[in-house]
Amino acid sequence: MPQKFVVILAGGKGERFWPQSRRRSPKHLLPIVGDQPMLVQTLARVRPLVPAGNIFIITAADQAQAVRKQCPSLPQANIVAEPTGRDTAPAVALAAALVAQHDPHGLFAILPADHVIHDTRAYQADLRAAFAAAGSAAVMVTIGIKPHEAATGFGYIQRGARWKNAGARTFYSVRRFVEKPSLKVAQRYLAAGDYLWNAGMFVWSVPVVLQALERDAPALHAGFDQVRRGLAAGRPLAPLLRKIYPALPKISVDYALLEKAGNVVVLPAAFDWDDVGSWPAIARHHKKDAAGNVLRGRAIVEEGRNNIVVADDGHLLAVVGADDLIVVHTPDATLVCPRGRAQDIKQLLKRIGAERDAHKWL
Amino acid sequence: MPQKFVVILAGGKGERFWPQSRRRSPKHLLPIVGDQPMLVQTLARVRPLVPAGNIFIITAADQAQAVRKQCPSLPQANIVAEPTGRDTAPAVALAAALVAQHDPHGLFAILPADHVIHDTRAYQADLRAAFAAAGSAAVMVTIGIKPHEAATGFGYIQRGARWKNAGARTFYSVRRFVEKPSLKVAQRYLAAGDYLWNAGMFVWSVPVVLQALERDAPALHAGFDQVRRGLAAGRPLAPLLRKIYPALPKISVDYALLEKAGNVVVLPAAFDWDDVGSWPAIARHHKKDAAGNVLRGRAIVEEGRNNIVVADDGHLLAVVGADDLIVVHTPDATLVCPRGRAQDIKQLLKRIGAERDAHKWL
Repeated sequence: MPQKFVVILAGGKGERFWPQSRRRSPKHLLPIVGDQPMLVQTLARVRPLVPAGNIFIITAADQAQAVRKQCPSLPQANIVAEPTGRDTAPAVALAAALVAQHDPHGLFAILPADHVIHDTRAYQADLRAAFAAAGSAAVMVTIGIKPHEAATGFGYIQRGARWKNAGARTFYSVRRFVEKPSLKVAQRYLAAGDYLWNAGMFVWSVPVVLQALERDAPALHAGFDQVRRGLAAGRPLAPLLRKIYPALPKISVDYALLEKAGNVVVLPAAFDWDDVGSWPAIARHHKKDAAGNVLRGRAIVEEGRNNIVVADDGHLLAVVGADDLIVVHTPDATLVCPRGRAQDIKQLLKRIGAERDAHKWL
Repeated sequence: MPQKFVVILAGGKGERFWPQSRRRSPKHLLPIVGDQPMLVQTLARVRPLVPAGNIFIITAADQAQAVRKQCPSLPQANIVAEPTGRDTAPAVALAAALVAQHDPHGLFAILPADHVIHDTRAYQADLRAAFAAAGSAAVMVTIGIKPHEAATGFGYIQRGARWKNAGARTFYSVRRFVEKPSLKVAQRYLAAGDYLWNAGMFVWSVPVVLQALERDAPALHAGFDQVRRGLAAGRPLAPLLRKIYPALPKISVDYALLEKAGNVVVLPAAFDWDDVGSWPAIARHHKKDAAGNVLRGRAIVEEGRNNIVVADDGHLLAVVGADDLIVVHTPDATLVCPRGRAQDIKQLLKRIGAERDAHKWL
């Protein structure tokens, strides 16, 4: 029986929840929704599925220290820092190498660190079913989310015929992966009923991933091989990665492997899911006052509707006579932004990054 | 020859420039416009007109310490704290008592502490002319401001016939004082051409003020008399005022004296004047960026127009994608408010005042 592993991808640039999120403390290290950091919540959800020694976290170099602090139950060696961000495909190859070191036939789940999932029981059941499916055939299992709106911020998975039943749950073969669509196309997907959101959750075995890498991403396969051989020779991981990473292609696992593979199946999730991609999304997870305002910390809205006002640091944050604003206070920086303009925060950070004395705010 | 005195009224509740202004540090104690607190600027403007010993500041009990600190050039005894605010008429009666102690025939100017005046030379010349006029006849001299818009936030003075020329300046008799008008009425005043803004600047002699108090405000006259007799008997001022003030009527000097008097004259000011009554008004005195934003301190506006963003404390204050907002950061409180809603700050402060644990922010 192959062992099971969970690899949590905890990178991220910390842009969309600025000023609470920063380069060194992006969303997954913060309690954006709930009392615990998102990563800690994710870890708690998977902890009953596998032993602690079988859980890896792949993070960014400048976040590793904070991750170690937040996840003291994991072996230090299981928290691995990528020297530079190279999107998800290199991280998956690295995950395969890490798992292979323990069990060359191991099964592993790739899970994002920063999503909101309330129904832990259904989540764990789906992951168990996905592990079973990945252990039963040479397939790449994805878990897809049934869309409830025509979202344009996610990729979609079109399911094909039923692949197999597992208890009350049905797996489908995947017809195709599609990139983030336009609103019109997304509306069509929603109406069609056979499209699911791609939530970046995959379960597969080391051999299946290696085969896919060899076939569709030879540069990544070569990188994986170097890591595997280095680890086998007892070389320390960090310098190995520093040497290999700069040469790796920057590419997502969807694009590098899944879109090209013919052996992908999808399990429609039985659990609730929200990626909470930016400030406006937190409104879905907070109580509101009678005027629809989300108030966190010492926040006051006088004569205003549907504002999101966050002052977790004891500072008094008062909005008077304004609607639909996001206002977030932190000890050294504050953001004021209409709810509909949250995507422009990236532009602001680009500008701050270009100012010589402003880097401390990134 | 009677001596000349200047009495600066420096009370104020610190509401309209919240959160920079507070009960203990209202507008006149802050550099709302310019590098110096408004009171310090006012003092510097009048300093060449009279000796330091002839300048009094009447302030509120909880502001007296800050006033003393900001005005070290004045004798301590000349900074007088009212035990409670009772509007301007009691302060004028108190001023008369303070001046009378030095010179029972003294001439004194009543001047607000927190206005913006750039043309100091013309201001001083007008005050000298007003002192001369008040010394030449038993009149109450007011300095009126020629209106340049149909403002509804000021009282107006309708001038009558020419009273006298003084050099190139003309004084007029006053036909009537009118309270803050509606917009329609203000537009009529502006078009008529014979209305001036009442800026709360008066010059008169002790005997003229006493006569008016005796005739039109006997309760205040009695209060004045108690203060005068107490001071003459060498009693300390503070307990005297604490005893007298609670019984005094809360009333403005315009309403108590000027509207009733027949001997009021007005000098149309030759200097620029702005009372800078709330946050939107500071835009008139600051450089703007290409999009019309006023940025003070570490303020950034990304894709927004005509915002007023104030972060004098080194905090990074970023506005993204919003127009026409006032955003003011201080170390313990921040305000976000559309420019057109600045008058609602009072409502906010009422609410904060009603919250048990929130008084520290007032």
